Amino acid sequence: MTGTEIEHLIKLLARLPGYGPRSARRAALHLLKNRASLMRPLAGALSAAAEAIVECPQCHNLDTQSPCAICVQQARDAGMICVVEDISDLWAIEKTGAFRGYYHVLGGTLSALDGIGPEDLSIPHLLARAGEGAREVIIALSATIDGQTTAHYLSETLRPLGVQVTQLAHGVPIGGQIDYMDDGTLATALKSRKAV
Amino acid sequence: MTGTEIEHLIKLLARLPGYGPRSARRAALHLLKNRASLMRPLAGALSAAAEAIVECPQCHNLDTQSPCAICVQQARDAGMICVVEDISDLWAIEKTGAFRGYYHVLGGTLSALDGIGPEDLSIPHLLARAGEGAREVIIALSATIDGQTTAHYLSETLRPLGVQVTQLAHGVPIGGQIDYMDDGTLATALKSRKAV
Repeated sequence: MTGTEIEHLIKLLARLPGYGPRSARRAALHLLKNRASLMRPLAGALSAAAEAIVECPQCHNLDTQSPCAICVQQARDAGMICVVEDISDLWAIEKTGAFRGYYHVLGGTLSALDGIGPEDLSIPHLLARAGEGAREVIIALSATIDGQTTAHYLSETLRPLGVQVTQLAHGVPIGGQIDYMDDGTLATALKSRKAV
Repeated sequence: MTGTEIEHLIKLLARLPGYGPRSARRAALHLLKNRASLMRPLAGALSAAAEAIVECPQCHNLDTQSPCAICVQQARDAGMICVVEDISDLWAIEKTGAFRGYYHVLGGTLSALDGIGPEDLSIPHLLARAGEGAREVIIALSATIDGQTTAHYLSETLRPLGVQVTQLAHGVPIGGQIDYMDDGTLATALKSRKAV
């Protein structure tokens, strides 16, 4: 019904997040209809990014330069390291502009079920970095079971190094409606209430 | 914050159907993490498809061969032409396996508002094809105002050529719940009721 090139393209597109067989078909058609303005540029951008991207040896971010664009900024506070699970978390925090230290991407969380231990993540590297004069390590891991287990392990391991270990505040998100919040969030928000 | 290659890639991904800036960022990260298994193959597939795809001179389908894989099938009924608005409609009908004639992709619908006349679509070509021995033209256009206007224009123009003009049946979709149907669909389904 359609050329093998199109079928192959649809199969690959279907593996993009949020896409399935049907939406991949729609995307393929959209691309085919915009060959000059979208399809060829996208092919070029994918190749170029795939070639240019390297993992930063300091923070494990992905960038076209090594060390990455964040790690080369001298104006940042070298005493602060923000630990995140994934590069997307780094991007999200960096976008806020509220953090002026350096990052460390773990590349996942500890998981007894999946057999992921500290050696499988960049935790030994984090301990080495923290030992080189860090004042504070901010743990910015997801508020999931694996995230919190990892946070607990990190705080226990970092404290003996004489580093202050902090964690993101938990509570009601800005704009969040009280009656839509789950019990855990509300209980935490109550316990961590602040004087106004 | 991220390399220009990544920013450029995210901008292009954001133009895919169903994607916005946020989901494009997620997709870019997913691609960067799966460089060998997804990113490079997708770049290759996009280039290959962009190079290989041509518009079929007979039915205006897009395929890697010209005439397309459907138009070269001799076993199909040359007396039947199914008129669709877009290639995605052709794909959808062909997937059912219920039609064994040939197709004709209009490339849009007539629209007085947008200034789209018969010459802007492949309507003159359809009339030429219908005049070359077609027995029946099945109009498979969307049940929208523009679609139905186009269907009406086509039936008026095709009838003088001595061609039987038919249209897809309207009614309750298979699996559709009566109480969720709009008034227009229910009224049409009632009017077109059939003896069981």
